[in-house]
Amino acid sequence: MEIKATMDAMGQAARAAARQLAQATTATKNQALVAMASHIRASVEAILTANEIDVESARKRNQRDSFIDRLVLNPERIEAMAKGLEDIAELDDPVGATIAKWTQPNGLEFSRVRVPIGVIGIIYESRPNVTADAGALCMKSGNAAILRGGSDSINSSGAIVTCLQAGLAEAGLPKKAIQMVATTDRAAVGMMLTGLDGNIDLIVPRGGKSLVGRVQDEARVPVFAHLEGLCHVYVDKDADLDMARDIVVNAKMRRTGICGSAETVLIDKAAMENNLKPVIDALIEAGCTIRGGELVCAADSRVEAASEEDWSTEYLDAIISMKVVDGVDEAMDHIAKYGSQHTDSIVTENAETAERFLNEVDSAIVLHNASTQFADGGEFGFGAEIGIATGKMHARGPVGLEQLTSFKYQVRGNGQVRPK
Amino acid sequence: MEIKATMDAMGQAARAAARQLAQATTATKNQALVAMASHIRASVEAILTANEIDVESARKRNQRDSFIDRLVLNPERIEAMAKGLEDIAELDDPVGATIAKWTQPNGLEFSRVRVPIGVIGIIYESRPNVTADAGALCMKSGNAAILRGGSDSINSSGAIVTCLQAGLAEAGLPKKAIQMVATTDRAAVGMMLTGLDGNIDLIVPRGGKSLVGRVQDEARVPVFAHLEGLCHVYVDKDADLDMARDIVVNAKMRRTGICGSAETVLIDKAAMENNLKPVIDALIEAGCTIRGGELVCAADSRVEAASEEDWSTEYLDAIISMKVVDGVDEAMDHIAKYGSQHTDSIVTENAETAERFLNEVDSAIVLHNASTQFADGGEFGFGAEIGIATGKMHARGPVGLEQLTSFKYQVRGNGQVRPK
Repeated sequence: MEIKATMDAMGQAARAAARQLAQATTATKNQALVAMASHIRASVEAILTANEIDVESARKRNQRDSFIDRLVLNPERIEAMAKGLEDIAELDDPVGATIAKWTQPNGLEFSRVRVPIGVIGIIYESRPNVTADAGALCMKSGNAAILRGGSDSINSSGAIVTCLQAGLAEAGLPKKAIQMVATTDRAAVGMMLTGLDGNIDLIVPRGGKSLVGRVQDEARVPVFAHLEGLCHVYVDKDADLDMARDIVVNAKMRRTGICGSAETVLIDKAAMENNLKPVIDALIEAGCTIRGGELVCAADSRVEAASEEDWSTEYLDAIISMKVVDGVDEAMDHIAKYGSQHTDSIVTENAETAERFLNEVDSAIVLHNASTQFADGGEFGFGAEIGIATGKMHARGPVGLEQLTSFKYQVRGNGQVRPK
Repeated sequence: MEIKATMDAMGQAARAAARQLAQATTATKNQALVAMASHIRASVEAILTANEIDVESARKRNQRDSFIDRLVLNPERIEAMAKGLEDIAELDDPVGATIAKWTQPNGLEFSRVRVPIGVIGIIYESRPNVTADAGALCMKSGNAAILRGGSDSINSSGAIVTCLQAGLAEAGLPKKAIQMVATTDRAAVGMMLTGLDGNIDLIVPRGGKSLVGRVQDEARVPVFAHLEGLCHVYVDKDADLDMARDIVVNAKMRRTGICGSAETVLIDKAAMENNLKPVIDALIEAGCTIRGGELVCAADSRVEAASEEDWSTEYLDAIISMKVVDGVDEAMDHIAKYGSQHTDSIVTENAETAERFLNEVDSAIVLHNASTQFADGGEFGFGAEIGIATGKMHARGPVGLEQLTSFKYQVRGNGQVRPK
């Protein structure tokens, strides 16, 4: 009951702060961001001390090294956090922009204008930098944020939120525009997912598949997320072989742990004799394990046999599945069946085939002759992003400042009443 | 179990049909709509016979006259339905439109392109015309529809769906692009609300508050709806009195049963002496009952005393609540507390006050010097609409063809790979 009261109070305070923040000018919000960065820089010692407590405690619980690595802060990482806040100050403010404007014959003037969404709940794992990043993106887009980070980073996040709130106060904005859930009790997450009595409008989960899956299952408010990135590269018979090789290797191996990395390569049967072996060679040379269908296994003894499960596995590792398909139609059928509507790419010199793929593949991002690793807000020119969404509603693809807004219709008249 | 199998099969068929429909040309979809209209006109007898069964059975169950009136079809209503389909054929097709286009410094060309949402489930009460209307709007926007109408209109709806499917077939489109749930078992609704294994992308409920409330509570897929339209008119001290009177009377009395009708009038204290009595007189003269706060009651003995509950009651009848407020700030606080984020209007000649109201009131539609009854897709110039949404995500305000689409990013390159 005590947690419920605390969380409900947070929701109400967030709603009140959101109402104020929605009317804040761009200059005021940017002033707050710059002040936040100064406070972060002035608090390096305090943040490091808090972080040491978290790291110590994670070590005692024998957490994996990769986990500790994500948790650890150092002066460089703290400076990057401060710089990130200043970068967000440089981005265009979407709030108040007129998206569309028209006049009806009766003289009513309609404007569709961007407004903040309201209160955004961010649920994330133990990367303390998400605290600064997500809090600042929500604030710049005029939204109040309720942050619930991993319990392992609670001291680090607390020290960072103190700096963010000091920045808000310095600009005359309500401190409660960015709040942190201070309890590690998981019941708090459940309460956020049901929307705190209508005081949370949107949940953004940032973390692995189990976190996102739980959020998507339990949330009763809209969620911007992707469960997984089962991204494909289809190498068409009309592909330029050198380009295909470069794109496949980059799509898989540039970084294997990100959602835009390719998990499956589909090779057109009609060019198999030319293309299959060189692509296999290039991947293996780059250090990638290949799990292949029958024809792929037959082509190279270093290929392991793929099981049915491989086609729907997001490896997030230096492993790729590979299959020979009968042209673009079978490739698109495969993607429709096994894909996650995230990001898929075709390599071909045939403009008609490319257009079919771009039009018919039902993914948030479809590429022609480019690597799937471009699935990133920065690469789109959106600046910072809070994640990538695969849902069909509202935000699809990279979620930047603009995607964190809604809109309203403003209608200006001079006494119009509606006829019968 | 049998229902589950039937519903799952419907979901799968809808998904397959949606994939085909997404690639259909505008001409083909319009051809289908025109053919649907012809089949409706050729089937007047069959539709009337089916409708008589429904009406007979509703009479036996002693349904109210207003209920029967919504259920009854006659040749004029059937012709209106056919004409409605032809009107939808005239509307612009949103699918395939490029919403935004830009090139990044590395040469990648980004296009944001409208695509259908996929499969839309429509859950509605016993107005058979919704069957034609909703099915056609979904189809024109490239979406497959699963229709679940009230059990009282099941025979009428069945006869109409037969015509719609005949029209689809005539244009070479899959019949299963518009399917109807043929069982009256309410379990089918529950299955639709959980999304039929990922085969329903969106639910649109059309009906009263109890239907919409149930859908919003139980749905695990996005819902476009409004629970209620608690619309306000605020008469500012700087209002033109004649205009205020006309707008208030129209906002309440033009039609009292629609979601855009006003339920509360707020009168600025600073102009109470001038404005209160004339507005009361005009409303009472138009046949409206007034439930007022203290100052309103004191002004006219015909005003009934409002209870706290009145401020959050959607009367949908010739009743209005009325309160004196201390300027635009108290008016906006009242709307924030009691409103439903649907449609609210200010009457004032003061441009600054109007802008504050338009910017700060957090409703889908905010009006200046115009009646709340303009909350309608047709009045916005959207053509036909499937409803009005008050959520912050994706569709807000009237939901027309464009709002029934999503988008994807198409990225065209010439071999770009992402640097480290």
